[in-house]
Amino acid sequence: MNGEEADNGFDPTRWLWGYEASKQRILHTMLRVKDIDASLRFYVDGLGMKVIDRIEIPERRAAATFLGFGGFSEGATLELASYLDGAGESYSHGTGYGHVAIGVLDIRTAMAKLEAAGAEVTLRPKRFFSGGPLVSFVKDPDGYSVELVQTRRD
Amino acid sequence: MNGEEADNGFDPTRWLWGYEASKQRILHTMLRVKDIDASLRFYVDGLGMKVIDRIEIPERRAAATFLGFGGFSEGATLELASYLDGAGESYSHGTGYGHVAIGVLDIRTAMAKLEAAGAEVTLRPKRFFSGGPLVSFVKDPDGYSVELVQTRRD
Repeated sequence: MNGEEADNGFDPTRWLWGYEASKQRILHTMLRVKDIDASLRFYVDGLGMKVIDRIEIPERRAAATFLGFGGFSEGATLELASYLDGAGESYSHGTGYGHVAIGVLDIRTAMAKLEAAGAEVTLRPKRFFSGGPLVSFVKDPDGYSVELVQTRRD
Repeated sequence: MNGEEADNGFDPTRWLWGYEASKQRILHTMLRVKDIDASLRFYVDGLGMKVIDRIEIPERRAAATFLGFGGFSEGATLELASYLDGAGESYSHGTGYGHVAIGVLDIRTAMAKLEAAGAEVTLRPKRFFSGGPLVSFVKDPDGYSVELVQTRRD
């Protein structure tokens, strides 16, 4: 064990995802955002997510805001990386990254709410497969594509 | 309800994430990959994920492969989009998308396995916070950054 790996006293508050896992799992997806307040209006006010933790790294003027529908033990989260000094740079979108998909109970109500708040709709609720769920796509304030899937039978 | 939204007979096999949800949740993160076989060597052979579903869309010569550590009801998944006709194009990485983070039980063993299989290591196991978990970064075959977090106390 080298210096970097040395454990300087176990601190359970730093183990966001717990420290007694018995199996592997997907923890989060990280996206860099220009304006965290705009992001929170979309993901929290619009989609109903909750801020479940926020880590500030003052020496880098950076923050990591974790959003989820429950705590860290209740499913994967979204990590939004931003700068502390107001709005940061705009980020570019390559061709590789696709989207994060979120399961909602009523896709039409969710889409109406996001659209009323100014979100750009790129696909209105549609079934990709006969007898399957309604799926839609919307862009978040940074232009990241977000897929909504209705996970309750309509 | 218009034509696109019409439900032509409920088909439960098309509701991958279920149809009796009582709350919202993050379902998956989608990444486009050039060579699905190379991706499966990394995520399945290397990281221990399982292929939990695969949807082919013949008219687009495309496939969506869903990977997870359990079924769709046991946590978020990774959707890898690829083409059916062998290796596709290379995708570009913008500056916005960060990574997917995966919780592992033994980060040193996981990193050694990925590195032996040829994965590029960008950060060896390190504690970002005193007393916190070991964290590392590695690149998948398409150059997407993958974070590993040890979720079992070492």
